[in-house]
Amino acid sequence: MNNWLETTLLALNLTNKMQKAEGFTRLGLSLDEQRSMAVFCKTASDLGLSVKKDPAGNIIARWNPAQSILPAVVVGSHLDTVTNGGGYDGAAGVLCGLAAVKKLQDEQVIPSHPIEVVCFISEESARFGISTIGSKAMAGMLDKGIGSVKDAHGVTIKEAAEQVGIDWGNVMAAERDESEIKSFVELHIEQGLEIERHHAEFGVVQGIACPIRLKITVNGKAGHTGTTPMGERNDALVAIAPLVTFVSEEAASLSAGSELPIVATVSTVELSPNSMNVIPGKVELGIDIRSVEDALKEKMAEKIVQQCKRLQEQLDGTITIETLVHNPSVHLDASIMNRIKEAGEKTGFKSHVMNSGAGHDVMNMAKKWPSGLLFIRCRDGLSHHPEEHADIEDLAMGVSILSAFLRQEAGEVSDHTNRDHRTHRLNRTN
Amino acid sequence: MNNWLETTLLALNLTNKMQKAEGFTRLGLSLDEQRSMAVFCKTASDLGLSVKKDPAGNIIARWNPAQSILPAVVVGSHLDTVTNGGGYDGAAGVLCGLAAVKKLQDEQVIPSHPIEVVCFISEESARFGISTIGSKAMAGMLDKGIGSVKDAHGVTIKEAAEQVGIDWGNVMAAERDESEIKSFVELHIEQGLEIERHHAEFGVVQGIACPIRLKITVNGKAGHTGTTPMGERNDALVAIAPLVTFVSEEAASLSAGSELPIVATVSTVELSPNSMNVIPGKVELGIDIRSVEDALKEKMAEKIVQQCKRLQEQLDGTITIETLVHNPSVHLDASIMNRIKEAGEKTGFKSHVMNSGAGHDVMNMAKKWPSGLLFIRCRDGLSHHPEEHADIEDLAMGVSILSAFLRQEAGEVSDHTNRDHRTHRLNRTN
Repeated sequence: MNNWLETTLLALNLTNKMQKAEGFTRLGLSLDEQRSMAVFCKTASDLGLSVKKDPAGNIIARWNPAQSILPAVVVGSHLDTVTNGGGYDGAAGVLCGLAAVKKLQDEQVIPSHPIEVVCFISEESARFGISTIGSKAMAGMLDKGIGSVKDAHGVTIKEAAEQVGIDWGNVMAAERDESEIKSFVELHIEQGLEIERHHAEFGVVQGIACPIRLKITVNGKAGHTGTTPMGERNDALVAIAPLVTFVSEEAASLSAGSELPIVATVSTVELSPNSMNVIPGKVELGIDIRSVEDALKEKMAEKIVQQCKRLQEQLDGTITIETLVHNPSVHLDASIMNRIKEAGEKTGFKSHVMNSGAGHDVMNMAKKWPSGLLFIRCRDGLSHHPEEHADIEDLAMGVSILSAFLRQEAGEVSDHTNRDHRTHRLNRTN
Repeated sequence: MNNWLETTLLALNLTNKMQKAEGFTRLGLSLDEQRSMAVFCKTASDLGLSVKKDPAGNIIARWNPAQSILPAVVVGSHLDTVTNGGGYDGAAGVLCGLAAVKKLQDEQVIPSHPIEVVCFISEESARFGISTIGSKAMAGMLDKGIGSVKDAHGVTIKEAAEQVGIDWGNVMAAERDESEIKSFVELHIEQGLEIERHHAEFGVVQGIACPIRLKITVNGKAGHTGTTPMGERNDALVAIAPLVTFVSEEAASLSAGSELPIVATVSTVELSPNSMNVIPGKVELGIDIRSVEDALKEKMAEKIVQQCKRLQEQLDGTITIETLVHNPSVHLDASIMNRIKEAGEKTGFKSHVMNSGAGHDVMNMAKKWPSGLLFIRCRDGLSHHPEEHADIEDLAMGVSILSAFLRQEAGEVSDHTNRDHRTHRLNRTN
């Protein structure tokens, strides 16, 4: 299994080594993502799964040896990455999903429910500032209007989607009926160090900290850097720079004073005109705030609003604040959570129940179906970084837990007639 | 004359109105700059000047009615702009240069020395971070190696030059011999409010504050914004943000404590990966420092270096500083300065002797030829901004001063034979 995992991990990442200085860049709705998804299709096909692409571009690989009409038990994640990201965020989930099916096949299990491995499209917000497009579409939560949102090169989501063969006019048809799916589980690298700190081996997530995202626009006044005296400037960057420190310090202080942590980051900065001899006339900042505790996120956002008001007093210009995203945090299904935990512990691994600071496709699936999230460790807790890494042993552990969970969740055609029948069929196809 | 100035100003700016929300964008070595230069060529030709393009792409429009072999008296400026800049920075100088020749023609002056109006190529550093490429080439100060410097889209100076018909391999041939030019004068908008503050009408520049430009590179560590606790971050932006305030406050404080002012600006910021859900792993800042007092600039640069060292102590990463530009300030020719002053005052305008916070093509020409710089007022001192504006009356004043200076500097073929000869020739060509 470990060999298969290693080989397939490289293949999904379109590479022959996982550690590269530049990491991996497969932005959502890009041809790079498509190439990686094509490897997913091939791998699933080779395992005998039937593969189809839904109207949003998600790939659904279905294993239904019992030709059951029951709702599917679904596992999945994504294959897109941030710019210069790692090859495990997302990839680990689809890899272990396929591997779990392979393991059940190797164990000659015939599940009562169909099992599906889904590769969601465009999970990361790196390209368009909008995350989990594919799982939103599947859960019926997509706002079709996002089609006009542009990437840094002015390409809209609709255009990018059409460039990879998605008919945006039909994207809403990707929504699946509640009756089609029994439950959903995502496996993902932790992107943190909580599991290790608690001397555990895997994480079972109860809550997902969904973000509040703010866009701060500062309008000062551009002017020549050489001829405008210091006292006569309305430098938009000078006006807003203290907010970076403020956000960092306030998040640290709010975290220290609360039971649940909060994180806040000024993660994007755009200067205009961003030219060596022009005073910055306009600055746009993007701020990402996360906590499982929604009230804490709102408190942080309010502190930022108040601080911007104070900073504006020293500027002959304007500071405006737009809320780009305001997603309440997601609490996952307790029953699924417990069964993942049990599946892992029965397999011999120690669990840690925790929250997720990052959003994942599961947060959309959880709105419609009982859903769970299983974390495996990653080195130094590092993610969205070229040095992102998960040990093959941890991936293999993930496969064991996932397959144990699936075996229980999907049930098993266990009577002798069927078992013989299956053996017969297997022989026939060999 | 005012009508001619208005019409020609619009034509040079390829527009039918000067005030536009988006201003003017004619980057150096772009097709936009070329289109504007083509209007310059046409206008000069219509005035009977012979027009040629030198190997660096500068346009030299020569008026030599006496067919003199004496060195030329040269005036000139540029037609490129910053992104969303104004239509006067540069354009005012070439416009008034042509107009001054027109005025001398209207006054039936036959200058003893040839008079040239030069339109330099690529004066602004907005595109490549390198300023005054054309005048550097003419003064023999160009470093041909800059050909590999790239703009934001990855286009090199060499490629851009070749796209507008310049053979970069031959660019050094643009250097002119010292004997070809008697003196050089540039007219430019002030880009400040010193003339107005001193209740004067034009400025005569004695010193030009050339910049020290620093590039600060901060290497922290990227990571997921949702999963990396505040206490475990190496956020490059958080590390360097206080430098923005520091630069602004220190420049103000150094200015207050010195006879000559200093300005310093963090004018460019590039985040990497600049993605909403990734902690900034790398930040690059561009800092522009200017003063006529070189020691003051160096003091400011040193303070920045020291501050970066302090900021690095709080970062598990590196802050490196590169000096992109370190140009000693330029002191202009005292004799030319006095004669511009006299020319203006004889014409009835009040002068103010001052320094320039901005670099101009004249600073290169001054290295080889006696050179002067004449400022006219611009509204609110605003430049590199869509609202940049100079009154037509101030442009007309500039023309009067420039033509008076040229008439004296170029001398006049004053004997009757020549005057008759000229009249004869003029008749013939009508």
